[in-house]
Amino acid sequence: MINLNPSAMAMVPFVSVQDMMKIVNSIGPRQMMREICAYIEADFARWPLFDKTPRIATHSEEGVIELMPTSDGEYYGFKYVNGHPSNMARGFQTVTAFGVLARVSNGYPVLFSEMTVLTALRTAATSAMAAKYLGPKGARTMALIGNGAQCEFQALAFQEIVGITAVRLYDVDAQATHKAAKNLENSGLDVMICNTAEAAVTGADIITTCTADKQNATVLTDNMVGSGVHINAIGGDCPGKTELHRDILLRSDIFVEYQPQTRIEGEIQALDPDYPVTELWQVITGQLPGRSSDRQITLFDSVGFATEDFSALRYVRDQLERTGHHIDLDLLADPDDPRDLFGMVNRAKGVL
Amino acid sequence: MINLNPSAMAMVPFVSVQDMMKIVNSIGPRQMMREICAYIEADFARWPLFDKTPRIATHSEEGVIELMPTSDGEYYGFKYVNGHPSNMARGFQTVTAFGVLARVSNGYPVLFSEMTVLTALRTAATSAMAAKYLGPKGARTMALIGNGAQCEFQALAFQEIVGITAVRLYDVDAQATHKAAKNLENSGLDVMICNTAEAAVTGADIITTCTADKQNATVLTDNMVGSGVHINAIGGDCPGKTELHRDILLRSDIFVEYQPQTRIEGEIQALDPDYPVTELWQVITGQLPGRSSDRQITLFDSVGFATEDFSALRYVRDQLERTGHHIDLDLLADPDDPRDLFGMVNRAKGVL
Repeated sequence: MINLNPSAMAMVPFVSVQDMMKIVNSIGPRQMMREICAYIEADFARWPLFDKTPRIATHSEEGVIELMPTSDGEYYGFKYVNGHPSNMARGFQTVTAFGVLARVSNGYPVLFSEMTVLTALRTAATSAMAAKYLGPKGARTMALIGNGAQCEFQALAFQEIVGITAVRLYDVDAQATHKAAKNLENSGLDVMICNTAEAAVTGADIITTCTADKQNATVLTDNMVGSGVHINAIGGDCPGKTELHRDILLRSDIFVEYQPQTRIEGEIQALDPDYPVTELWQVITGQLPGRSSDRQITLFDSVGFATEDFSALRYVRDQLERTGHHIDLDLLADPDDPRDLFGMVNRAKGVL
Repeated sequence: MINLNPSAMAMVPFVSVQDMMKIVNSIGPRQMMREICAYIEADFARWPLFDKTPRIATHSEEGVIELMPTSDGEYYGFKYVNGHPSNMARGFQTVTAFGVLARVSNGYPVLFSEMTVLTALRTAATSAMAAKYLGPKGARTMALIGNGAQCEFQALAFQEIVGITAVRLYDVDAQATHKAAKNLENSGLDVMICNTAEAAVTGADIITTCTADKQNATVLTDNMVGSGVHINAIGGDCPGKTELHRDILLRSDIFVEYQPQTRIEGEIQALDPDYPVTELWQVITGQLPGRSSDRQITLFDSVGFATEDFSALRYVRDQLERTGHHIDLDLLADPDDPRDLFGMVNRAKGVL
């Protein structure tokens, strides 16, 4: 008798958007970001062993589609992600994403997952991790400039991981600010709605910029940034897409994820290619100092790097049994004899 | 009332291995390869407009994992594919693959598909397309050296597209040859089992090499290749993985898919980096000659290129309605307000 049901070897666990939302809500978004942060930090601590490359970007007039692969030698991961600022006006997400984790030894995928929601979590977890090392001691107030899809995740990650108690919101679109304030109303954070970016940064220990325009914008000007502040700049992540005035960069100590990629995509596009920056893993491993004085301005010029997605995928994979929220997809051909792919197809005729 | 069912916008059609086998068997493998060949040929004919890059390979001791992206400006496609020669002995496929087609204008995927079976079809379709332009007139007999997963697809594609009537099979593993011969017994092809590669090539108009060792092997030596033959070399597709003796290359006119990738991965690794070769699309568009004499040895040094996968994904997408063999996956987050990703997750609490 021919058994044509796919074998276990052919199946890959798939986490849909609905399943990811179930995972987030069963663990809790703050707890989940804390746990993802630990995975990201563990992978930054073993940074040199990762196979790293700037992401492979395909640009068009409307936006960009990117592939972000990396590997620690045991597992291989990649994310597909788009960035289309014009999508929002058309009712689409600016950023959508999905990703795969695979075993290096045989090349077989072990997880296929939505990553639109997961990217929001890992981005906020990475920002908070950086701020643990770079932010001023006892930081309590964060300005959030740009109140789009990433905003609330940032607020909750900084509350959970850094100890922020108050956020000051500003967006060029007041509706976005209203949306964010409403979503955060039961978070335990003090939420202040501000009418200008200047008002938002007043008294803030940490300034997070997460706007989405695909252009060189000036979300922050030099006079808005006082000494001792930590800037978490996550919106500038494309060639020609930056958020900060160049003068701020010159007054800051700059920390990046992976220099070859950030030179192309980050705020430091505005600087000479040999302008000194520190890679975050060097701080996390203790090789180089993070914040060294109370008056120093620290800038995390974040563009998002493949290892962060790898860490997030590792984390989700480790939750599959704990949460049970996934289905199995018949993604891999698994003939009885690996050389007999044609026979497998042929024998399925009339049986399937 | 909150509607938390994913909207149509969130869904991506998924073709599993079982669905792909249903598609192949409903259309018929030969007919399907003929139709895929037409898509591949149409895309080679508009070659200059594609965004092209050598594939992004992550090598390990056991094998390689690759991403192969490309775009025609309207659609973007990529394939994930592994190559692990040691897999076969462990009961895994040497090559497994899946791929995605997405709309460039908004970055949203429109198809997610298994590509282990599909790659076998597109590889054979590409080989047959090249042989239409490069093979000797009236070719009837093909030697097939290497009788693994790709072998029968090659035989049937050449029967359907080139008009081959006889195949001569050889593999270092006699069981592989037996398997291929059995699978082809009702194909209408004359099938000859040969005990040596020398015997297989005797009288052959076309020689196809599709072996899988990850090393520089010599499947063909110079004295085995007579004048007028077309060589379809598809097994050499990794740095350090070739199949032909260098002297054969020097006697042949060499045709490749995409020169920057083939220089890294193809048989021409063995030659100087400026050794002249012709890109196949130049022949297909009539810019350069293909075969120009009866005595000429033509060599298609095939490594597989991203546009071929793109063409195959375009084809599968166009069959979704015709065959109905797919399911919809909830892969894309689709909040009512694109900026309200957090609210979407939060409102799902207790509802899902």
